[in-house]
Amino acid sequence: MSALVVIGARTPDGATVGLRCAPDGTIGDLGPDVSAAPGEETLDAGGQVLVPPLVNGHTHAAMTLFRGSGGDLPLMPWLEDRIWPVEARLDDEDVYWGTRLACLEMIRSGTARFWDMYWHPEATARAVADAGMRASIGAPFFDKGRDVAAMRTEAVEHLDALSAVGGLVDPALAPHSIYMVSEGSLRFIAELSAEREAPVQIHLSETKPEVDDCIGEHGLRPAAYLDELGLLTERTVLAHGVWLDDEELDLIAARRATIVSNPAANMKLAVGKIFDYPSARAAGVRVGLGTDGAGSNDSLDLLADLKLFALAQRHAASDATAISVDDAWAIATGAKAPLLGATPLEVGASADFVLLDPNAPELAIGDLLADLVYAADRTAVDTVVVAGRVLMRGGEQPERDEVVAKARERAKRLGL
Amino acid sequence: MSALVVIGARTPDGATVGLRCAPDGTIGDLGPDVSAAPGEETLDAGGQVLVPPLVNGHTHAAMTLFRGSGGDLPLMPWLEDRIWPVEARLDDEDVYWGTRLACLEMIRSGTARFWDMYWHPEATARAVADAGMRASIGAPFFDKGRDVAAMRTEAVEHLDALSAVGGLVDPALAPHSIYMVSEGSLRFIAELSAEREAPVQIHLSETKPEVDDCIGEHGLRPAAYLDELGLLTERTVLAHGVWLDDEELDLIAARRATIVSNPAANMKLAVGKIFDYPSARAAGVRVGLGTDGAGSNDSLDLLADLKLFALAQRHAASDATAISVDDAWAIATGAKAPLLGATPLEVGASADFVLLDPNAPELAIGDLLADLVYAADRTAVDTVVVAGRVLMRGGEQPERDEVVAKARERAKRLGL
Repeated sequence: MSALVVIGARTPDGATVGLRCAPDGTIGDLGPDVSAAPGEETLDAGGQVLVPPLVNGHTHAAMTLFRGSGGDLPLMPWLEDRIWPVEARLDDEDVYWGTRLACLEMIRSGTARFWDMYWHPEATARAVADAGMRASIGAPFFDKGRDVAAMRTEAVEHLDALSAVGGLVDPALAPHSIYMVSEGSLRFIAELSAEREAPVQIHLSETKPEVDDCIGEHGLRPAAYLDELGLLTERTVLAHGVWLDDEELDLIAARRATIVSNPAANMKLAVGKIFDYPSARAAGVRVGLGTDGAGSNDSLDLLADLKLFALAQRHAASDATAISVDDAWAIATGAKAPLLGATPLEVGASADFVLLDPNAPELAIGDLLADLVYAADRTAVDTVVVAGRVLMRGGEQPERDEVVAKARERAKRLGL
Repeated sequence: MSALVVIGARTPDGATVGLRCAPDGTIGDLGPDVSAAPGEETLDAGGQVLVPPLVNGHTHAAMTLFRGSGGDLPLMPWLEDRIWPVEARLDDEDVYWGTRLACLEMIRSGTARFWDMYWHPEATARAVADAGMRASIGAPFFDKGRDVAAMRTEAVEHLDALSAVGGLVDPALAPHSIYMVSEGSLRFIAELSAEREAPVQIHLSETKPEVDDCIGEHGLRPAAYLDELGLLTERTVLAHGVWLDDEELDLIAARRATIVSNPAANMKLAVGKIFDYPSARAAGVRVGLGTDGAGSNDSLDLLADLKLFALAQRHAASDATAISVDDAWAIATGAKAPLLGATPLEVGASADFVLLDPNAPELAIGDLLADLVYAADRTAVDTVVVAGRVLMRGGEQPERDEVVAKARERAKRLGL
C-alpha cells in the first residue's frame, strides 16, 4: 500500500496545507504545494484543520474496566473494597481489552500517545500496538509489604519485555510513589533508569498527607527526596504535583523533570488543591496534561480535560489571565515537555496528526485555538492519523462495537 | 402524520420500555408493553437508554456569535472593547442565527429546554420555535444610565410579545442584576412579575465586588435586598449565587426561589469561588445548572458542565462525597427546581426525552448514571425528542451546515 497523501487541509490560521506520509510513517512532505501523484492513496481533507494530536501524560488505561463501579465512595473504601480485590484477579486478556477500550476513547478525542502505568504491561503494549497508538508503558512497582528482591527482578523482566515490543511502544519504569516504594528500591529504579536510559513515571504530591508523611519519614519534601535518590532527572515524569512548593518547582525545573497535571482526577478525588501552573511556568518547569485512569476521572477524553485544566487554573488563581490559550494547547499536545514524546508537524517527524471539522458548531466562529480549548469537544475531531496510519476518519471507528463488547465481557467476568 | 412510538428502549436500570407520543406532543403511554400499531410512526430504539433531557437554566444563547473572540482578556476589557460595541450593532437576524447555532449545540448535548436572557428576545423566540426546543425567554433589563420610563415600557412590550409566541416558548422577565438596575425598576419588575405570573431571571452574587457594592449601597446582602423588593419568590431564577452566605441560602430556600449554578463561566471568569451546593442542599434550596453564554463558557454543552459541576463541588468541599451522582443528574435535568420546567418521563407530561447509545465506550461498563455524570460526553447522545418531535436521531442534525454557515456569516458581518 502506498503511503497516505493529505490534500486540501488548512492550518489553524486558515492557510492551505497538504501532507505526504513517507513509507516509514514519517512526514515526507508538508506545505501548501503538496499534491497527490496518480495512484497515491489520497485523503481529501476538504478544508479540515490540521493540528498535532494530544499527548495524555498519565493513564492507567485498563482501568476503564473499573469505570462507574465506585459509586460515590471516598478514595480509600473505593480502593480497598472495590479496586484492589478485583485487581488481584486481573489477567492479560482483561488488561488487553480494557486498554483497547481506553485506546478507542483516546483516539476519539484526538490523542495519539499516552503514558501508562498498570498491571500486565505487556498486555497493554499488545493492545496499544493493535490499536495503532503510541505509548510509554511501565509496570507499577511497589514493594511495601512485598518481596523486594522478587519485585526488582520482575521490574527488570518487564523492562526487557517492554523494550522488546518495539514499534510505537516505548518502555518505562513506574515506581508507584514515595509512599509505596522503599528508599532502597527507589535507588534501584534510579540506577536502572540511568543504565537503560528508561524514563520513570511516578505519582508525586497528589495529596497533602503524602507530603506530610514524606517530610516525617525522610526529613525532606517529596521533590527533594526524589532528587537525593537520583530520581529527579530529565527522564522523570511526575504525575500530579499538586502540593509542591516553590522551592520544589525550582528544583524540578533545574533537573528538567516533567510534571503532568491531572485536573479531573484531582478534583474528583478532592485532593484539595489545583496544580499551580503559573508558578510552574514562572519556575520554568516542563508541564504536560493527563487524564489519569478511568477509575478516578472517569473519562479518557484529554480534549475535555484541556478545558478543565484551563478553567481550573483560572479559578485557582482567581485570575482570568492565569493561563493563555496558546500555553494550554501546547501543554495538551505535549509541546511543553520534550520527554512526553510529542511529534511536531514537520518533515521527518512521525506522521501523527489530527484533522478537525471546521463546520463543528463550536469551531465555526472566533479564534480556532481559543475555540479548541474552551468550546470544542471531540465531536469536532474528524480524523486521527498515527505514524501514517489512519486510526479514525469521519469520527468512525470500525472496531468500536467489538472492542466495547469484549471489554464489557471482561468487566462482567470480574464482577464489575 | 401519526404520533411517534418508541419501542425497544431500556431504562437506566436495564428494563425494557416503550413510549407512545400523543398527537398533542405529550406522553400518551409509557411502559414495558408499549408496542406500535400498524401504520404508526415507529422508532426502534434497539436497546438505547431512555432518560429525561437536560435543562439549561442560564444562557445568553445568541452569544455564540462572540465565541472565541475574547482571546485571553480579563472580563472588563473584554466586555468594554469586544462585546458591548458589537452588541450595540446586533439586529434580529444576528440574534436569530446566533440562537439557532446555540440550539444546535444544546440539542446535540441532550438539552430540551433553556432559560435565556438576551437582546432581541423575539428573534430568540423565533429561533427556538424553528429549532423545536423549549425556552423561557426574557429581555435584559438594565436602566443604569438609560431612560428608565422607556425601559419599563419596553419591558412590558417584550413581555407581551414573548407571551404571544406560545408553543414551546414561555415569557420571562430578566432584570440584569442588582448593580445594573435601579431599586425603583426592581420593584416595578417585581410587581409586573406578580401581576403577570411571569418568572424573573436575574444575575445574583456572581462576584464578590458585586456583593460588597450591594451591602455598601443598600445595607443588605443581595438576597435580602431582593427579598425586600419582593423579587425573591418561587418565580425567581437566581443565576450564579456564588457568594451567598448561609443566611441568604436559608432565605432563598424559604422563598422557594431557584439558584442556577454556572460552574464553567464562574471558573473561566475566575470569580474566585464555587457555588456551595452542599450548603444549598442542607438549606433546602432549589438548584439548577446552566452553561451561561458562549462568551464566558464557551460551550453550551450542559452534559460536559454536569461533570464539571460535580468535580467542582468535590474540589471546593475537599470532599469526594460532596455531591452524589443522583443529585448531580437530578440538578442537570431540572428535577431539583420545579420552576425550571423539566418534564418528567410520565404519561401526560410533554414527550421530551433522550435516547443514549449503550455502546458508547464510556457507558459500556459500570453504573449508567455514574458514567453519564463522570465519563460520557454528548457523543453518547443519539436521539433527542421534544414535544414528540424528533430533533436529532443518530447524532445527525440535518440543518447543521446551513445553521453554521448562516451564523458564521452574521459573525463576519459584525466583525467577529
